[in-house]
Amino acid sequence: GIVNFVIDQGVRFVTTSAGNPERYTSQLKAAGLTVFHVVPNLSAAIKAVECGVDGLVVEGGEGGGFKNPRDVATMVLLPLVRSQVDVPIIAAGGFVDGKSMAAAFALGAEAVQMGTRMVSALESPVHENWKNAIVNAKETDTVFLNRMHSPALRALRTDKTTRLENSPEVNAMAEFGKAIDLYFGGDMESAIALTGQVCGRIDSVRSVRDILEDVRREFFETLEAMSNRYLG
Amino acid sequence: GIVNFVIDQGVRFVTTSAGNPERYTSQLKAAGLTVFHVVPNLSAAIKAVECGVDGLVVEGGEGGGFKNPRDVATMVLLPLVRSQVDVPIIAAGGFVDGKSMAAAFALGAEAVQMGTRMVSALESPVHENWKNAIVNAKETDTVFLNRMHSPALRALRTDKTTRLENSPEVNAMAEFGKAIDLYFGGDMESAIALTGQVCGRIDSVRSVRDILEDVRREFFETLEAMSNRYLG
Repeated sequence: GIVNFVIDQGVRFVTTSAGNPERYTSQLKAAGLTVFHVVPNLSAAIKAVECGVDGLVVEGGEGGGFKNPRDVATMVLLPLVRSQVDVPIIAAGGFVDGKSMAAAFALGAEAVQMGTRMVSALESPVHENWKNAIVNAKETDTVFLNRMHSPALRALRTDKTTRLENSPEVNAMAEFGKAIDLYFGGDMESAIALTGQVCGRIDSVRSVRDILEDVRREFFETLEAMSNRYLG
Repeated sequence: GIVNFVIDQGVRFVTTSAGNPERYTSQLKAAGLTVFHVVPNLSAAIKAVECGVDGLVVEGGEGGGFKNPRDVATMVLLPLVRSQVDVPIIAAGGFVDGKSMAAAFALGAEAVQMGTRMVSALESPVHENWKNAIVNAKETDTVFLNRMHSPALRALRTDKTTRLENSPEVNAMAEFGKAIDLYFGGDMESAIALTGQVCGRIDSVRSVRDILEDVRREFFETLEAMSNRYLG
């Protein structure tokens, strides 16, 4: 199965999501891999920790991708989970720079995960049309689909996703379309471009090196400025 | 009109929201009042600053109350607005303690506004049923209503609001009900209890003094811990 394949490939770190953490955690852990589970709410976080995961990816509803229909924003979810679990936390949903990383650390995270920022990075293999759509999008230019079904998803606003937003009785997963034609063909109406609200904070396609260097520099600058201003 | 009434009462600080900031700002400012405008996105923030407001209340979609149908979470909205305006910012939506206050300051705010925390404070005049419902609610126990109409609103999940959530074609404002029977009569199904996602982080009814003392203490503790750990 997929677990043996992952182990055989020499993978050392796995994140699992959207399913029951009981399913793979013990097998992966027994093979020596580090396992983090993605969680959208507190009860899922507690369940994952009880299953023995090494850490959590705590993902707020502002992030792109497949979501729990009852979305909770990072500002609420992250400190809530931190207050109830002791494992390391990677914060996801809303992260794009050193200021948001500093906010995540204030809320109790040990790391941040940047999805939309990396999808639109220079080295990202997706079509430039998707990258440019992220660069051009405002912070209000995502939609949250499939709240009445599951999984829900957050994606860029397009003609297709606007139609789905206006037809909440339709299961968007059945209308997902051909991802490959969007991801690599660049046809933004052929599928659903999973994207977070941070698209509104991304103004250019940049190399991963530049992104990470700026995040790191700005994180320390932000902490130093707060320390100087409020701790005197 | 209402503006003259406010001025005649000796009010010194006004927050306006949900309308055009051109309407009252110049008259209030001419009378010497300080005017902050509540904004749900960047374009509204820029417009308010152009109208001469003294500052902004930047309110993320995780907050309770009347909302823009295209909600943006605080983690994205706050640093975006901060990057484009120079006026003081009060952050709202998701704030309940010193950790979230520290996060807000990392994202560029000069203050935080706590709505749901104060609605459920000891001195709050609302019925204890609403306070207890906030104390008992999980972080997933709010609904976002009226996305297809305007204004949208975030409220506690009840039988009534669950029905409205499942009928997105119905304008929830027409079904709002008698607020006074909920606010002061304690009938949680008689109207819509406007409440933010931070209900999931509120575990007890507390005095305003205790809340503010703890927020202040925890804010400084959070900054000191981050400073010690990362600036060494």
